[in-house]
Amino acid sequence: MGYEALKQRVCEANKAISRAGLAILTWGNASEVDRAAGLFAIKPSGVDYDVLTPDDIVLVSVESGERVEGELSPSSDSATHAELYRCFAGVGGIVHTHSCAATAWAQARRGIPCLGTTHADHFYGEVPCTRALTREEVEGAYELNTGKVIVAHFEKHGLDAAQMPAVLVACHGPFVWGTNAAAAVTSGITLEEVARMAQLTFELAPEVGPVDDHLLDKHFLRKHGAEAYYGQRG
Amino acid sequence: MGYEALKQRVCEANKAISRAGLAILTWGNASEVDRAAGLFAIKPSGVDYDVLTPDDIVLVSVESGERVEGELSPSSDSATHAELYRCFAGVGGIVHTHSCAATAWAQARRGIPCLGTTHADHFYGEVPCTRALTREEVEGAYELNTGKVIVAHFEKHGLDAAQMPAVLVACHGPFVWGTNAAAAVTSGITLEEVARMAQLTFELAPEVGPVDDHLLDKHFLRKHGAEAYYGQRG
Amino acid sequence: MGYEALKQRVCEANKAISRAGLAILTWGNASEVDRAAGLFAIKPSGVDYDVLTPDDIVLVSVESGERVEGELSPSSDSATHAELYRCFAGVGGIVHTHSCAATAWAQARRGIPCLGTTHADHFYGEVPCTRALTREEVEGAYELNTGKVIVAHFEKHGLDAAQMPAVLVACHGPFVWGTNAAAAVTSGITLEEVARMAQLTFELAPEVGPVDDHLLDKHFLRKHGAEAYYGQRG
Amino acid sequence: MGYEALKQRVCEANKAISRAGLAILTWGNASEVDRAAGLFAIKPSGVDYDVLTPDDIVLVSVESGERVEGELSPSSDSATHAELYRCFAGVGGIVHTHSCAATAWAQARRGIPCLGTTHADHFYGEVPCTRALTREEVEGAYELNTGKVIVAHFEKHGLDAAQMPAVLVACHGPFVWGTNAAAAVTSGITLEEVARMAQLTFELAPEVGPVDDHLLDKHFLRKHGAEAYYGQRG
Repeated sequence: MGYEALKQRVCEANKAISRAGLAILTWGNASEVDRAAGLFAIKPSGVDYDVLTPDDIVLVSVESGERVEGELSPSSDSATHAELYRCFAGVGGIVHTHSCAATAWAQARRGIPCLGTTHADHFYGEVPCTRALTREEVEGAYELNTGKVIVAHFEKHGLDAAQMPAVLVACHGPFVWGTNAAAAVTSGITLEEVARMAQLTFELAPEVGPVDDHLLDKHFLRKHGAEAYYGQRG
Repeated sequence: MGYEALKQRVCEANKAISRAGLAILTWGNASEVDRAAGLFAIKPSGVDYDVLTPDDIVLVSVESGERVEGELSPSSDSATHAELYRCFAGVGGIVHTHSCAATAWAQARRGIPCLGTTHADHFYGEVPCTRALTREEVEGAYELNTGKVIVAHFEKHGLDAAQMPAVLVACHGPFVWGTNAAAAVTSGITLEEVARMAQLTFELAPEVGPVDDHLLDKHFLRKHGAEAYYGQRG
Repeated sequence: MGYEALKQRVCEANKAISRAGLAILTWGNASEVDRAAGLFAIKPSGVDYDVLTPDDIVLVSVESGERVEGELSPSSDSATHAELYRCFAGVGGIVHTHSCAATAWAQARRGIPCLGTTHADHFYGEVPCTRALTREEVEGAYELNTGKVIVAHFEKHGLDAAQMPAVLVACHGPFVWGTNAAAAVTSGITLEEVARMAQLTFELAPEVGPVDDHLLDKHFLRKHGAEAYYGQRG
Repeated sequence: MGYEALKQRVCEANKAISRAGLAILTWGNASEVDRAAGLFAIKPSGVDYDVLTPDDIVLVSVESGERVEGELSPSSDSATHAELYRCFAGVGGIVHTHSCAATAWAQARRGIPCLGTTHADHFYGEVPCTRALTREEVEGAYELNTGKVIVAHFEKHGLDAAQMPAVLVACHGPFVWGTNAAAAVTSGITLEEVARMAQLTFELAPEVGPVDDHLLDKHFLRKHGAEAYYGQRG
């Protein structure tokens, strides 16, 4: 008891990734964390979005990655979510999909450079692409190791998860996040659109480079910085 | 009071850019000017299209670019709209979006040449792409300067806003216009389709050039010239 | 009177091209001919598909291309339709659109080769692309001359309109036809899909050639020949 | 009598391929086999999906490929389905479409390499593309020979239909399968998405190779192997 609102939000976020075209069949999952309780709510594995109900949502321990409540098995990607919640303190919700355009970049093993203000409004620089996992990482605790490779990439490149709410796992696809599950869905929608635009841009201008830092700063910070002025302020 | 019809039209135009797929999330805004009153009505910043009502629409002074009525903050792009209304006398409505195909051209920093009659029916020649804004322009009055760069591009190249109701701002995206907000939406829909077609055309024939002037004249003028014969005439 | 059923079918065909995504805004028109009466029914110019009613449909003389019944002005492309009805005896319905993929081929000034059975099921060989019209043809009776250029292309290349129910007019877009207006819509839907597939195919295999004649014959003739066996036979 | 449930499932599977965008017009068919009865149920030829009812579904002998029940003519591709049911013992349902992205690969006469986990989750390696049929094969029992070419390709390359539920027939399009008709539809949806992703990937990275075997094994076997752990287990 006590997690009904959380399960309701996570159920809705999972339906939202289907409605937004980010996931077909059962190819995606959304979660949201309750930091105080040390658990997160996540989609059960292999269940269709249109029959999903809040009661189906599974609760998983952040620390162990193990199920703590729910009849169904949690998403097979739960260990990745758990690792990201453990290491990225400000993250409140996570979405994983195989959305088409973003996955194409992951399969090409390329990060998505910031080519315009659409990108700069949400992602503070190039959306990174990790290395592929090694044989040992794949044959071992694969989903946990996926999380570890993401975190290591952010640490190695000095990336801040609060300013870069997305990553492409090479040969796999995107993980995105936000302050809660709904915000993570917004990151997923934005990433897919930015990936599509960047693909078209490179077809028109293969040699194009990222935007100037002053434009990136302006757009990211007018929405996300301390002096943000986009949207309605209290 | 007295602006209910104007707000209603602007509300509807904002919903139309969402329905037409020109804007996802909150990535676009439409406005319409009342020249006699010296103000324009525009979408509030960061509000979802599906919950938008006419009462949410904000009134902004053409001269100052400042809000003159409305509880919500106007679109962060209001200063760009104001500058365009000040300098392009015949413009009655403006739409700004990040529609995917048009934005790809803006990110590629290329104008869209007139490759066929679909384009020539609406745009009298190549849809121009501005230069990128300088550091000073970005760090200063950014949205106002965006408008200034557009106007300067039109002046420098002798373009007539009545015959070229669209521009791509480099590294950013399209601004389009028309005699009112609904006409501006039509310009946006047309630009997006023309951008998509031109991209496909260049993939099939990288060396293709613009259509002959006589075909451009024929198509543009049969719809827009003094002797236009497309559509229903009074 | 007596043309209610014809107008009803033509109204429905025009709505169908919008529903099928072949035409946005008012960018397309469908017609159907009554050979005995020497007239065809066609969409009025510039009217939205969703408000179109059978009463709006205009009757035009095949011989003169002039309106013979209806309050509204007929489509500006009526003279092209009339020319095709005069010269292609077996054609019962015609559709003109600016559908995106087919128009891209027209803008690239390339015919669409038969790359597979999807194409061969409907079009007996490469969908041809005409030459561009000359200045004189454009500045003169433009829409009539568009029809003449199509007919001349078919004559010059020995094409049979019954076996090739589509053409691309260079720098413009597709005209398609069939035994009635509904069949012409089917030709338009098929052409658009075949155009999209061919574009993707050339991106994957720029050097690919058309299918063998025996495959083309098999597929076209199993649906359209004297010994056709596709579909339900009486 | 006794086949009502089978016909119902096959009717629904045919509607599903239309809804999923795998088939426009009448360009696809789904079937499901009753191994004990030695027959399969399949769509009638040339009937629109939206008017299709279970009573329209035709029963065909697996052994002879001939109709054994039903008023309508079965799909012209029935002989291909029959051959696949005869030779691929574990297959319970088959779908044939001309879905756009997969057909483009078939027209390019290329198999689709496994470029990521989306592919590896469903197809155990490269989705194969057959050779084109010879003149004799096309002019003879064409649809039967299409099945024979598929089977010969699988035998020659040591492919297991249970692990590779899809094939591209060169110059034609995809055939996909599964344990029943609904599973075959899932294979078709997955193939189309994987084909689209692979096309985009090659545009971004023309030199990219297939994923490592350990990643392929991990993803395919976590969903399909003896120790599968994706989805809900009994």
